[in-house]
Amino acid sequence: MSELRREPVLHRWVVIASQSWLDITDLLEDAKRKQKVEPCPFCDGREMQTPPEVFAIRDPSSGRDQRGWRVRVVPNKFPFLRIEGDFDRRGEGIYDRMNGIGAHEIVIEMPEHTGDWATKPAGHIRDILYAYRERVLDLRKDPRFRQIVIAKNHGPGLAILPHPHSHIVALPIIPRRIEDELRGTADYYQRKERCVHCDMIKQELSSRSRIVIETKGFLVFCPYASRYPFELIIIPKTHIPDYGSIEDGELLELAGVMKETFDKLKKLLKDPPFSFVFHSTPVQNFYEPRYHWHIEIRTRIPISGGFEWGTGFFVNPISPEDSARLLREVH
Amino acid sequence: MSELRREPVLHRWVVIASQSWLDITDLLEDAKRKQKVEPCPFCDGREMQTPPEVFAIRDPSSGRDQRGWRVRVVPNKFPFLRIEGDFDRRGEGIYDRMNGIGAHEIVIEMPEHTGDWATKPAGHIRDILYAYRERVLDLRKDPRFRQIVIAKNHGPGLAILPHPHSHIVALPIIPRRIEDELRGTADYYQRKERCVHCDMIKQELSSRSRIVIETKGFLVFCPYASRYPFELIIIPKTHIPDYGSIEDGELLELAGVMKETFDKLKKLLKDPPFSFVFHSTPVQNFYEPRYHWHIEIRTRIPISGGFEWGTGFFVNPISPEDSARLLREVH
Repeated sequence: MSELRREPVLHRWVVIASQSWLDITDLLEDAKRKQKVEPCPFCDGREMQTPPEVFAIRDPSSGRDQRGWRVRVVPNKFPFLRIEGDFDRRGEGIYDRMNGIGAHEIVIEMPEHTGDWATKPAGHIRDILYAYRERVLDLRKDPRFRQIVIAKNHGPGLAILPHPHSHIVALPIIPRRIEDELRGTADYYQRKERCVHCDMIKQELSSRSRIVIETKGFLVFCPYASRYPFELIIIPKTHIPDYGSIEDGELLELAGVMKETFDKLKKLLKDPPFSFVFHSTPVQNFYEPRYHWHIEIRTRIPISGGFEWGTGFFVNPISPEDSARLLREVH
Repeated sequence: MSELRREPVLHRWVVIASQSWLDITDLLEDAKRKQKVEPCPFCDGREMQTPPEVFAIRDPSSGRDQRGWRVRVVPNKFPFLRIEGDFDRRGEGIYDRMNGIGAHEIVIEMPEHTGDWATKPAGHIRDILYAYRERVLDLRKDPRFRQIVIAKNHGPGLAILPHPHSHIVALPIIPRRIEDELRGTADYYQRKERCVHCDMIKQELSSRSRIVIETKGFLVFCPYASRYPFELIIIPKTHIPDYGSIEDGELLELAGVMKETFDKLKKLLKDPPFSFVFHSTPVQNFYEPRYHWHIEIRTRIPISGGFEWGTGFFVNPISPEDSARLLREVH
């Protein structure tokens, strides 16, 4: 059983998975091997190799855990958090711990082993985004969960399996980073009675130098204090705290925006590894109406300064204005 | 001229280096080439290829910027912050910016092109630590600086040049991560009138399960809520806010502790890439007597979950108790 631990200085929660992996040599070898899992358990026709699906978009004629799906969501076979159990939250001297309660689901984004958001039709990406929303809405019914996180890693060295997939994680705590954003949002609101992200959108629309894509409802821009080259934020132009409340019509628009974003990154940077994370309000009693949901995208290219770790101090060799201009020029 | 930028949600400062690197292709190629710089400008006999030294430990018979040194400190030829200039701190709408004022020095740790902290004699490592202290004491005389950061990257993919070296950076701001630690320390002190790190040391000494090395003055342990496998903290057992105040006698003890730590990591994990950062109180008017200086070490091994980015939520597959036990068993 994994556990959640928190230290007393930064109050940061960490999952200690402590499986029975006691031989570190095995563990390191294992990490290398994982890249080459064959046959791939996420591929079309291997539905029985995953835990039973919790959601799928599939042909009406096909049955659960059979072929005929376009997007499929399954519990992670090796979850770092488990859905069963009670909290058991307690202290260990000056430290805090609780059981590793949570949900960890895998969104298998397509039946094909290779493919990406840049080349799939927007309609298919809408299906993935629809699956995200449906899982978010279902998982938040569990009163133990405070935050649902959607995240994706793409590319060798980041993703554990190459088959296109993303993660949905339901947490019994609010991650430190989201908590910091909630505090920053609340502070700004208290001083100005306005949403800080709404103000940011207004300023970006007025200066335009950091904008990459603008549609009726969404803005894609390189943030003013970008930590990394080609860092991107995708944000709805109107104030919406919660990804879960996105409407069907907006899903297709967002799908088009994301497809175009990843297409630009792929063409400009030769299919770089990237990660994205959806930042949305916590759920249930922790719902924060002043928050403004958005997606953060980080591209991994080999020119990072490496100085940021340990200090929270970032050095970005390319200005966001240059990053945005280069991305705008990709067609 | 680079600049410092801060966004309004997390209040995180970022250096935007924006050199005249407009062709991203060149930039990416350049990053690959950098690994193979020949001849190495840090090697013995090539003293004229660096900016003039600001400090060195050398044979009394040798002259400045000549051979005969054991440790040499030079300004970075390609600094991301510059020592000349005024603050010019101002707003840009809701954002904040200031000129990229600061110092960025390179500590060339030894004349040989290859070598490491595990194999060098403790006396030599003391010389490196002595150089750190002298530069910290000198740089803090400049009233523009609030924080002096000492950091090292070791191993391919992390260090830009393979010749053993570390960084000393003087900043006109307090990095976000240190600021968070200062706040956590102050909150704890307000509640308990005790130092949180002193309490942590007491608890680690009492449970012993996460301790790797203990000497008269220092403790090396895997933190309770370790974010990464084999994450380590090296900390003085008595309350000292400031690395700059370390005494000559303690330098040799710390050198022995660091040598043993890196020797254990090297043997157990086959010379893994690692980073370390010294966390010390800010300087001048920002000096914080409740802070407790320490070194944080992160080893980079290929079993990270990759989930931490964007959420501040970490998954560690090995418990710190297992990490500490495995390191203790290395001789």
